Amino acid sequence: MRNVMMVCEYDGTAYHGWQRQPNGISIQEVLEEKLGLITREEIRLTASGRTDAGVHALNQVANFRTKSTIGCENLLKGINSLLPEDIAVKIMSDVDDAFHARYSAKSKVYVYRIFNNRVRSALYRNYSWHLRTPLDVDVMNRAAKLLEGEHDFSSFCASGGDAEDHTRTVIGSSVHTRGNFISFTIEANGFLRYMVRNITGLLADVGKRKIVPDEFKKIMCAKDRSRAGITAPPQGLFLKEVRY
Amino acid sequence: MRNVMMVCEYDGTAYHGWQRQPNGISIQEVLEEKLGLITREEIRLTASGRTDAGVHALNQVANFRTKSTIGCENLLKGINSLLPEDIAVKIMSDVDDAFHARYSAKSKVYVYRIFNNRVRSALYRNYSWHLRTPLDVDVMNRAAKLLEGEHDFSSFCASGGDAEDHTRTVIGSSVHTRGNFISFTIEANGFLRYMVRNITGLLADVGKRKIVPDEFKKIMCAKDRSRAGITAPPQGLFLKEVRY
Repeated sequence: MRNVMMVCEYDGTAYHGWQRQPNGISIQEVLEEKLGLITREEIRLTASGRTDAGVHALNQVANFRTKSTIGCENLLKGINSLLPEDIAVKIMSDVDDAFHARYSAKSKVYVYRIFNNRVRSALYRNYSWHLRTPLDVDVMNRAAKLLEGEHDFSSFCASGGDAEDHTRTVIGSSVHTRGNFISFTIEANGFLRYMVRNITGLLADVGKRKIVPDEFKKIMCAKDRSRAGITAPPQGLFLKEVRY
Repeated sequence: MRNVMMVCEYDGTAYHGWQRQPNGISIQEVLEEKLGLITREEIRLTASGRTDAGVHALNQVANFRTKSTIGCENLLKGINSLLPEDIAVKIMSDVDDAFHARYSAKSKVYVYRIFNNRVRSALYRNYSWHLRTPLDVDVMNRAAKLLEGEHDFSSFCASGGDAEDHTRTVIGSSVHTRGNFISFTIEANGFLRYMVRNITGLLADVGKRKIVPDEFKKIMCAKDRSRAGITAPPQGLFLKEVRY
C-alpha cells in the first residue's frame, strides 16, 4: 500500500470543520469522496488535527493509504478539478510508510487575525474578528510571549473536556500589526480544543487594557477554564503550517 | 440641502456591480435603500464611478443630498447596522456643497491582484485571478511603466464603446510581487470601461513572455481594441482609492 501525503488549503466558511460529522458537511468528507472517485477505493484521511467549523487552513496536512497506481501529479490534477472552489490540494506526494500526519507532526503554527477598526470590514468579514476598541499591540505581544515554554494550558481548553494531559510546549508566540490587522501567531507541539481562540479572547482583553500581562499569566497558571475570557470566533483562525 | 460624502468598502462577489441594474442587485441600490430607510427620503447616490460585476472596492466614494437632520455619526452607525455583511460604510461626512464624487475626483487608484501558482487558491478564489504559468514580474513592471503619461487608451477600452475621448493621464503604474501574489497598481485621472482588466490581460502576456514590453507599447499606441489580449476576470480588481 502506498502512503500518500497531501497539503491542502481551505476556506472553512461553508463547512462544519475538518472532521466528518453526522449532520453537516466537513472538509474531510469532501476530500475523501473526491479521492474515492479518482482511486475507486474507500479513502480514509488522517489529518494533522481537526479544525473547527468556520476555521481556515493555508496548509493542512493529511495522509492516506491507497493501492491506486495513479501518480501523484495526476492525483493532484484530478482532485483539484473535482473539488469545490473553496478547497484546493497544493501538494500530493508519496511518503515513507511510517509517516503519519498527526503523530509525525513536530509542531503546528496557527495565526489568528483581528480586524481592529471602528467600522467592520466587508472584504475580510469571513477572515477576521472585528474588534472596535483600539488594541494596544505592544502589551498584547508582551502577554503572548508569556505563553512560550512548557505549560499546562487547561485555562485555555474547551470546558467539559476529557481527562487527558493538558501540557503543551509553545515554541513561539507573538502579536504583530499591519494596517488595521492584528495577527497573533503561535507555534506549539500540540493544541487543545479551542486553545488558540481562547488565548486570543484573553489577549483581546489585554489589548483593551482590561487586564495586564501579569494577570494574563495568573489566569494561564490557574489551570481553570472559568478564569479566562471569551472564545474568539472561528473565522479569524488559520492553520498556517504543520512542521515535521 | 446637506451634501454628504461617504467612503465605502464592498465585496463585489454577490453583486451586479456598483450601478443600478434592471435585472440584478447592485451595490448602489442596496446603499440607497438603506439610506432611504434611515432618512425617510428617496436618496440618490453619485459615485466616483461605476465598478463592474464582481469587482471589489476598498474605498469607493459617493455623495448624496439630504434634508435629514441626523448627524453623520448616527447615519454611519445606522447604515452599517442595516447593510448586509459584504458592504460597509467607513466614513460619512458633511462636505462642501460643490463636492461631487465623480467630477471632483482628481484621480483613482485601482489594484489588480493575480494569484500566480501552479495550483489555484481556495481562500483567495474571489479576490484574485489565478494564473498557473510563472510570470516575469520585472518585465511586467517595465511594461506597466510605459502606461505612465497622457495617452489615448482606445486599445484597452471595452469594444463597442461610444465616441467619447479616450485620452487619459496615468499618474503611476507598477507591478509588485508578494509571495504568490502579483499586484498591478495604476493611478489615473480617469479610466475607460474595462481599462484596468484589459491592461492586466495584456500585462499577463508580457509576464508569460508571449510579447515584449515594446510590443505592449505598440499595441497601446495602435488605439485599436482588437490588437490587445483578453480581459482579466473581475474578481482580481479592487478600487483602492479616490483622490480629491
